[in-house]
Parts: sequence; C-alpha cells; structure tokens
Amino acid sequence: MPVTPEQQAEIEELRASPRSTLRAVSEGMETHLYRAHQVLDHGFVRVIDYMGDDAAICQAARVSYGKGTKSVQNDEGLIRYLMRHWHSTPFEMCEVKFHIKLPVFVARQWIRHRTANVNEYSARYSILDREFYIPEPSVLAAQSVINNQGRGDLLQGEEAARVLEWLKADSTRAYDHYEAMISQDGQQGLARELARMNLPANIYTQWYWKVDLHNLFHFLRLRADSHAQYEIRVYAQKMCEIVADWVPAAYGAFEDYRLGGATLSGKAMACVRRMLKGEAVTQENSGMSKGEWREFQEALDHSA
Amino acid sequence: MPVTPEQQAEIEELRASPRSTLRAVSEGMETHLYRAHQVLDHGFVRVIDYMGDDAAICQAARVSYGKGTKSVQNDEGLIRYLMRHWHSTPFEMCEVKFHIKLPVFVARQWIRHRTANVNEYSARYSILDREFYIPEPSVLAAQSVINNQGRGDLLQGEEAARVLEWLKADSTRAYDHYEAMISQDGQQGLARELARMNLPANIYTQWYWKVDLHNLFHFLRLRADSHAQYEIRVYAQKMCEIVADWVPAAYGAFEDYRLGGATLSGKAMACVRRMLKGEAVTQENSGMSKGEWREFQEALDHSA
Amino acid sequence: MPVTPEQQAEIEELRASPRSTLRAVSEGMETHLYRAHQVLDHGFVRVIDYMGDDAAICQAARVSYGKGTKSVQNDEGLIRYLMRHWHSTPFEMCEVKFHIKLPVFVARQWIRHRTANVNEYSARYSILDREFYIPEPSVLAAQSVINNQGRGDLLQGEEAARVLEWLKADSTRAYDHYEAMISQDGQQGLARELARMNLPANIYTQWYWKVDLHNLFHFLRLRADSHAQYEIRVYAQKMCEIVADWVPAAYGAFEDYRLGGATLSGKAMACVRRMLKGEAVTQENSGMSKGEWREFQEALDHSA
Amino acid sequence: MPVTPEQQAEIEELRASPRSTLRAVSEGMETHLYRAHQVLDHGFVRVIDYMGDDAAICQAARVSYGKGTKSVQNDEGLIRYLMRHWHSTPFEMCEVKFHIKLPVFVARQWIRHRTANVNEYSARYSILDREFYIPEPSVLAAQSVINNQGRGDLLQGEEAARVLEWLKADSTRAYDHYEAMISQDGQQGLARELARMNLPANIYTQWYWKVDLHNLFHFLRLRADSHAQYEIRVYAQKMCEIVADWVPAAYGAFEDYRLGGATLSGKAMACVRRMLKGEAVTQENSGMSKGEWREFQEALDHSA
Repeated sequence: MPVTPEQQAEIEELRASPRSTLRAVSEGMETHLYRAHQVLDHGFVRVIDYMGDDAAICQAARVSYGKGTKSVQNDEGLIRYLMRHWHSTPFEMCEVKFHIKLPVFVARQWIRHRTANVNEYSARYSILDREFYIPEPSVLAAQSVINNQGRGDLLQGEEAARVLEWLKADSTRAYDHYEAMISQDGQQGLARELARMNLPANIYTQWYWKVDLHNLFHFLRLRADSHAQYEIRVYAQKMCEIVADWVPAAYGAFEDYRLGGATLSGKAMACVRRMLKGEAVTQENSGMSKGEWREFQEALDHSA
Repeated sequence: MPVTPEQQAEIEELRASPRSTLRAVSEGMETHLYRAHQVLDHGFVRVIDYMGDDAAICQAARVSYGKGTKSVQNDEGLIRYLMRHWHSTPFEMCEVKFHIKLPVFVARQWIRHRTANVNEYSARYSILDREFYIPEPSVLAAQSVINNQGRGDLLQGEEAARVLEWLKADSTRAYDHYEAMISQDGQQGLARELARMNLPANIYTQWYWKVDLHNLFHFLRLRADSHAQYEIRVYAQKMCEIVADWVPAAYGAFEDYRLGGATLSGKAMACVRRMLKGEAVTQENSGMSKGEWREFQEALDHSA
Repeated sequence: MPVTPEQQAEIEELRASPRSTLRAVSEGMETHLYRAHQVLDHGFVRVIDYMGDDAAICQAARVSYGKGTKSVQNDEGLIRYLMRHWHSTPFEMCEVKFHIKLPVFVARQWIRHRTANVNEYSARYSILDREFYIPEPSVLAAQSVINNQGRGDLLQGEEAARVLEWLKADSTRAYDHYEAMISQDGQQGLARELARMNLPANIYTQWYWKVDLHNLFHFLRLRADSHAQYEIRVYAQKMCEIVADWVPAAYGAFEDYRLGGATLSGKAMACVRRMLKGEAVTQENSGMSKGEWREFQEALDHSA
Repeated sequence: MPVTPEQQAEIEELRASPRSTLRAVSEGMETHLYRAHQVLDHGFVRVIDYMGDDAAICQAARVSYGKGTKSVQNDEGLIRYLMRHWHSTPFEMCEVKFHIKLPVFVARQWIRHRTANVNEYSARYSILDREFYIPEPSVLAAQSVINNQGRGDLLQGEEAARVLEWLKADSTRAYDHYEAMISQDGQQGLARELARMNLPANIYTQWYWKVDLHNLFHFLRLRADSHAQYEIRVYAQKMCEIVADWVPAAYGAFEDYRLGGATLSGKAMACVRRMLKGEAVTQENSGMSKGEWREFQEALDHSA
C-alpha cells in the first residue's frame, strides 16, 4: 500500500480546505491535488502544487497585461503553433510540483534529467522504510536478443520463480541487517549514512520533484516512449494523464507533435519523396544503415 | 505612466475575480497579484503568479505527506537552519512569475542571470512603444574616480542639462525615424526586425520573468546590493518588498544571512581573531592587499 | 575591419606558439584557433579553445579507460546512433569557446540560449568602440506580408537610401553625444554606465561564449535555419563550417538528422501513410490547419 | 585494485603520445592526465581532458584578443578580485572532464549537483563488475549523538566485526544472485535492466563527469567541507589537489575566500563589532539561537 491511513488522512485534510486566490486556476488539476495515484507495487505520483494553465501559456507568449486570451479556440491555435515551431519559453511559464515514491533504480534514471528541482528523502538523516519493488510476473522478462538495453520474452516457470524468490529474500535480509546495524539497542549503532549502503536498488525512496511544462514534456517524450524501461514508463504515463487534465490544449499539441510524431532524417525524407513518386525504395538503395531502415519502416507502419 | 487606463482596467478585472483552490496560498502575495508597482519613469514590476509559501519550503525539506508544518515557530527555525547551511533545494520549491517593464540596458544586465524563464516582447514581431528612460537629475552622476564601474558626484548645472537634452533629443529622433522606416504609408516599410536596430538602449522593453526563490535570492543579493547600478537596484529593492510579503520567514533569513551578512576570507578571519586578542592589526601586517583591507574595514564598520 | 593590425599581431603571435599536450587534438580545429572569421561588416567569430573530438564522444558514451575507439568507422556508426536516438550526454562531453563580435540586437537574440557561459565586454567599465552595423542593400528588406516576424522584398530606390542614411546619421550622432557625455575634458564626465544608454542596438559588442556541443547543435539548428533572422544566421552558418572541421562525424550526423531532417506530427505521418497507399490527400481531409498543411507541403517538396 | 593491468596499459599508451596544439596548456594539469588516483578501496579520479588555465580566466574577464595577460602578478590580483566579488563567469571559462569510479551511494549524493555533464556506465546495457565498497575499520563510525546526519565514535569490537561481516556477505550474495539471474546458461536469463535492482548501494559505478571551474568550486566547497560525508569528501579532497596543480592562482583564491573563509550573518557581524569594542557578548545577549551561537564560536576559534 503506497500510503498509510495516517498519510491518507493528512491528504484528505488538505483536500478539505479550499481557499480563495486571484491566481489562474486549472479545474482539471484541482481534482488531482494531493491525491496519491498508485504506480508499481508501493509507488505513487501526487501533485503538490502547480502554476498556470493553457491561458497562461498564451498570456506569456503575448507578454500581455490581462488574461492574454482572445478565445479558447484562438488559444489552442496559438499553442499548436508554438509547439510546432519549437517555441519553448511560453511552456516554461507553467510549473508543477510532484511528490513521487519510486524504487531507487528508477530514481537513478530519472535524476539524469537535470532541469528540475529535487528534494529527496535523506537516508543520511532518516531511516528508510521496509518497502521493495518486486516485479509482477507479467513484466519479468528476459534480456532482449535484439536490443542490448531492452527486454524480450517473459521468464517462465522455475526460472521466474527463482528470480522472484531471490529478489524477495535478498531484500528482506538486506533490510534486516540494515535495521540490526543501526539499532542502538545494546550497541552503539552504525551511522545511518553508512548503513544505507547495504540496501539494494529496489528499495523505495521518495522526493519532491518540481519542473516546468517544457522540460516535463521533454521528460515525458523520452520516458513515456515504448523504448523506455517499463518501471519508469508507468510513472511517465500516469503523469501524462495528469498533464492532460491540467493543460488540455498544450497536452493535445504535445501528443500530436511529439508523442505521435516522428523525426525523419534527411535521408529518410528523400526516400519518402522517392516513394511518393512511385519509386521502389529498399534498404540497399536508401543510403541508410540496416538499423536506420528498420526504424524508418517502423515509423511508416506505426498506427498511432 | 507605466500602464494605460485600458491596461489598468484589465488588471482590475483580474483582481475582481477570486477563485477557489486547494493549493497553498500566501495572503501577503495575494495583495500584490497583477498590480503594477512603478519603478523608474515608465517601468514596473507586477506579480503574475506564484507557487508556495514559507510552509511549502519546510514541507519539501521534510518530503512530507501533509502540510509538513509543526508550528510557525518550528518552520521559521528550520528555514533559518536551511539558509545558514546553504541547503538551497527547499527554496527552489517556491516559484514566482513577474511581468516587468524595464529599459533595454537594464534588461541586458538582468538577463545575465540565466537560471530563470523569460518571454520578452518581440521587436521582430511587434512595434515597440515610444517610451524612454530619462534619469532624474538626482541620479545623473559622473564617472566615479575610485571605481571603474561606478558613479561619483552628481552632474552639475549646464553639463547636467546638456546630457538630459541629448538623451531626450536622440531618443525622440531615433523613434521618429523608427516609425518612419516601418511605415507602410506610401512606401514598402522596413522589416521590423531591422528597424529596431536604430533604437537606443534606454527604450523600454518588457518581459515575463519566472524564477524559483533560491535563484531569486541570488539575484537580489547581487542586484539589491549598494554596488549594483542604480537602475537595476530599484527593481531589486521593489522585489525585496514583495518577497518579504510572500515568504516572510524565508525573507527574514535571507536578510540576516545574505543581505546583512558578510563573507570574510581566511585572512580576514585570522585578523579578527588577532584583534579580539587585543593585537593591533594594520593593512601592512594583515597579509591583505589595500583593496581587501578597505573592504574588510567597511564590513567591520558597517552599521546594518 | 573587424580586427585592428595590433589585434591581428596578437593573434599571429598566439598561432606561432605550438605547445605539447597529452589531450585529444582535433587537427581540423587547430587550423581555426584564434583566427577571426569576418561576419557582417565589423563582426567576427574566433575559436579561442576547444575540448574533445569525435573520438571523445564515443569514449564518453562507452565510459572507457583508453581512447574508447575501435575504428573510425565504428565511431561514426555509434555517433549516428546516438544522434538518432537523442542521446545527448555524449555530445555534451565536447566543449568550445568562441570570441564573437556582434551587433547588440543580435546579441540580445543570442543570449536567449541560456545553456552557455558568457563574458561580455562591459560598457559599465569600458568605453565602446565607434562601430555600427549598417546592412548591405542586398539584405535591406521590407516587412514580410505573410510572416509577422520575417522579411519580404528588398527595399528599393529612395526608400532604401533614406533608411541607410538614417541608420548612419543616427548612429554617428548617438556616438558623438556618447563621447561628449563621458568626456572629462573641461567637465565632470557622465558615468559610463549611464552614457551607454544613448547607443543604438546596431552598435557592436563582443563576448566570450563557451558551450558544449549538444547545446551548440541546438543553437545551430534554430539559428542556421532559413527562418532565423539573417543577421544571426550568418554567424550560425560560419560556426557550422567550423564545427564541421572540428568534429566531422558528429557534424555529419547533425546535418542528416537535424538540419536536413523534418519533424512530422502524428497527423502528418498519417497523411504520409495514406499517400503511400495511393490516396489523394488534401488539406481539407488531412485534419491539419492551413498553416500546418503549408509547412507539411514544404517538408515534402524540400530538396535538401 | 581500481584499474586492471589492461586498463593501466591503455592509460600508459595515452600518456606516451604527446601532440602539438595551439591551445592554452597547463603544465601542472598535464602531469595528471589519464592517471588513476585511487580513492577508497576500488575507486579513482582521473582527469580525461581540461580547457584553460589561470591566464584564460583573465583573458575572458578582459574579453581580450591575445593572451590577455599583463603579468603573472597582475593575473593573480585580478583573479583574487573576481573571486572576492563573486564574479563567477570568468571561472566558468575553464572546464575539466573527469573519469570517476565511485560507490553508488556516493554517486547518488554527487548527482544532486546538476550543473555538470554526466555519462554513467549503463547497467541496462552492460554488466556491472563485482566490486563493493567495504569501509576501513578506521572510518566505521556510530551515528552521531549530536548531529542527525553525521558520525560519532568508531564502532568497537564485535559490533564492528559484525557490521563488516554483513556488508561483505550481503554484497557477495547479492552479486552471486545477480550473476545467476542474468546467466543465459541453461535458462533465458533475466533482463539486465531488472537484475541490477538486486545490487546494493555500495557497488561501484563509474562515470565521465564534466564541469566548469566555477561549478566545480561550488561542489568542492560543499563536499571537501568537514561536514560532508567521509566517502564523498575523499573524492573532493583529491580533486582539490588536482585543481591546485591546474589553476594555482584560482585555487589559491578559492582556498582563501571560500574554503578558509566564513560567512557571518548580520547578527554575527553585530556581535563581532561589539566584541571589538570590548563588550562581553554571550549567546543570551547575542540575538542568536544556540545552534547559531555554537557555529559562530567555531568560526571564531577555527585555526585555519
């Protein structure tokens, strides 16, 4: 269970106290505030705060005095134009702050996106909880035979059982020893900043993560992608749903131009032009390597 | 006049429409929202949006589920601790968005602070207004004779009058020609992206500027300082007043530890220790250069 | 003339003093070091220093102990793979430092790219030179009638002459007054930090600009593009030539995947698929707006 | 042993191949290039590349055409002036690229400094080595009783032995299972991106880390500090030695103004002034909290 009853009560208390503000309000986002959306076995994504809405993007693009809005339709057109032409700064004018609980190996991948503000729970200062990510059998996959950084078929039978058993047993033992090492019961008790080193990468951590909408879109484009590791992708997908409620027009443009779109190389565009003229283009006469050609075919075949 | 009656009406309309939110609200900041605080002759600072308050800083530092607040007193103690020990990330969890109107030469200095989001009024796309900064006689100063980048005594009499006359006449003529060049009345009309090059650096521009509290403090420490150029300092001072209303505890800590504090070098600290033992320390036996010694004396004499 | 004989002598002196190093060396880049490549009437681009080469990109991607190179061919394949899959961090491992002289209105556009290090010549501290950008008649264009931020036809006859005359006369007068204001000959002399405000945006400034290769590519993609303003595009194009000599494999990949490529939206890809099946697709049945359709047609027609 | 004989041979090969360059060269830094400086039991710091030297800092500050140097003495004075007045941009003009091998829990702390470029060894793509950090008994300390995030006395006797035994045994078992899970010998073999989650935080990883000198100083000030965790401090201290050889004047200024200096609050400065007048100042009449007063006393007592 990602949150305890006490934590849930704190969340409900916050949701029960509306206040008055003169700021831009996104009704869609208000429904998410503070709520814990479960991800993986013990993780979650919660919106703690946000700044701006679709209209705020347009207002900033126009550097306007008032709402900057002419009409919802005009705003959507402007937002699509900005997205299409890589005008990133108006999207930077919206900001969101999440509270996220996630396994450490996911956190390590996530933190590579540096253009965000982060406050992580400190295992130097505090004691980590006994919560570990153990994959569902439905995602416990073998190493891919075609992709060096991907998964292939699901593990079967005894092998799957053995892996799950090891993951559980090693986590449990590591945490038992962690607890025993820091205990001050009849002994000095190892410093927490040292004891944490015994904990495996599937233990859960949590952080506050604050990011502007432009950089969030960049993160989501890479991490909601089918090539991203499953365990981070599920977080990205949950955040996509939240963003769609927060800034529907901006999210729609993002979906069309980034998530659903494709970047074709000069060589690929030349092939498209030849193909549209009726020419038979093959990998051999395309000028592309086998890898590029395969990805080009995937882009053409893709049914978005 | 920094804003026109139409703009003022738009601002009033926004202030007349409170809405309900579940987010953290700073009552002090709500009083500022949208209002234009005049700076210099035609400039202003306006708060367009904000995220977080003093409690949000503590909530992030504790990575908490609820408000993260134990008491206002505890929060203030924690905030002072965080500021004293250079824990910057909790302050990054607050964000503010300003609309600022300022002379171009001030904007050029301002933009050197890169850790902010900016949308500037585009002179490629739009036509700039006929508004120029003309200094008050009370700030029209001569080059400093001791500081290569500073001001000395006020200009007197004819010299002052001549300078003001030139600034006004050159601005007027440059703008007349700007208008005449882009006019499409009986001629093609020069592209705006070219015509703008005729405009001097005292013309006003405007932008939306969004920044987190940590980086805003860094900006304010440098630009509200007495060594900053007067024309940017007045913006920074106005923003200090606003921030004091937004996050009083954080601003109080900033004032004590940054604005009112002093950074002493290893040599300076060694001198303080010797002086406290009753030793007579002079520049000659201090190990410091004359410049360092003068600044050290200023820090000791300063009545904050 | 962008550099004086004295400056040219300093440059020659630096080029005459090779030294021994154990670092990665790019022979192509060594030929550029310190040389001033003229841009516009008084501007230039000079390479002051660089770090890394094509092999260094691969070495970082492999986190290797030695050169990280298997063969030049392997390296090129890896670099193309990294570029195609948006692996940006290996490209960040190369760095370049330029000295650039450019008109202020170009500098103002340039500085919006925040992920670089900048040291600009200080007009608070120093006196600016009397050098202004005056456009060639061949680039003196009217406002575009179809693009709000672009140029259309060249100005003709008297109108062109009048514009050039104003630009020259206003620059000259502004600088005369600047000089007269700061003069300490028989008067106090206005502070430089104030006098600079009289100077128009076509005056030249200069700066040291240091950036990593990934962010430089991002800058070049936007600023070497045909939609960029001519006066910044010529700088970007000159830098493209330099980068092609510095890291030929990386530049080749950049040219194919970014400069020569196209990003198609989900809707555009759906149209391509329908067209390849022989369907007649028009703007009306494409789901795209007129603007999107026009840009889609341009991408398809483009002969790279 | 941090590097294998094969890796050492690669390093020697690189050091045996000097080349000619026109760039600035730091003789002190050339002696470090590629060499592995051991840190902890299996870690190291290696310099892979660098850009600039002390003179380059001055050259950028002066935006000069040639070397920008008047004399070594002038350069040192300028560098001290820049450091004292927080002019950070000239220091950003130097850059360094390290190859670092470090335990994961150290890497997690390190990566919080976001203003650097990083390429980490990928455990999705590759297999991690069997190398774990096991603390020396001389640093195996109990939790501090006065500081929530610090160490106190050394662990004694049986407790120390038990901790070391657990750390070793758990690492060994976790790695045995990691190997067994990814093995494709008679089974499918778990995906590497999943198997890595079983590995504890004392396993070693490695990365290329590139940073400019200003941000490196910021990192070193925080991490070479006595309050930093020992396991990251030893890396920072090794890097301090390297930087002292690279840019001696800049490092000297850093040592005096940052490492050896003290930042005193407004309240603390007021106390210093009162004490210099001979007044007896105590915590009670200082206006400071007990924590602040203790830190103030430490700053005054400190023998740098």
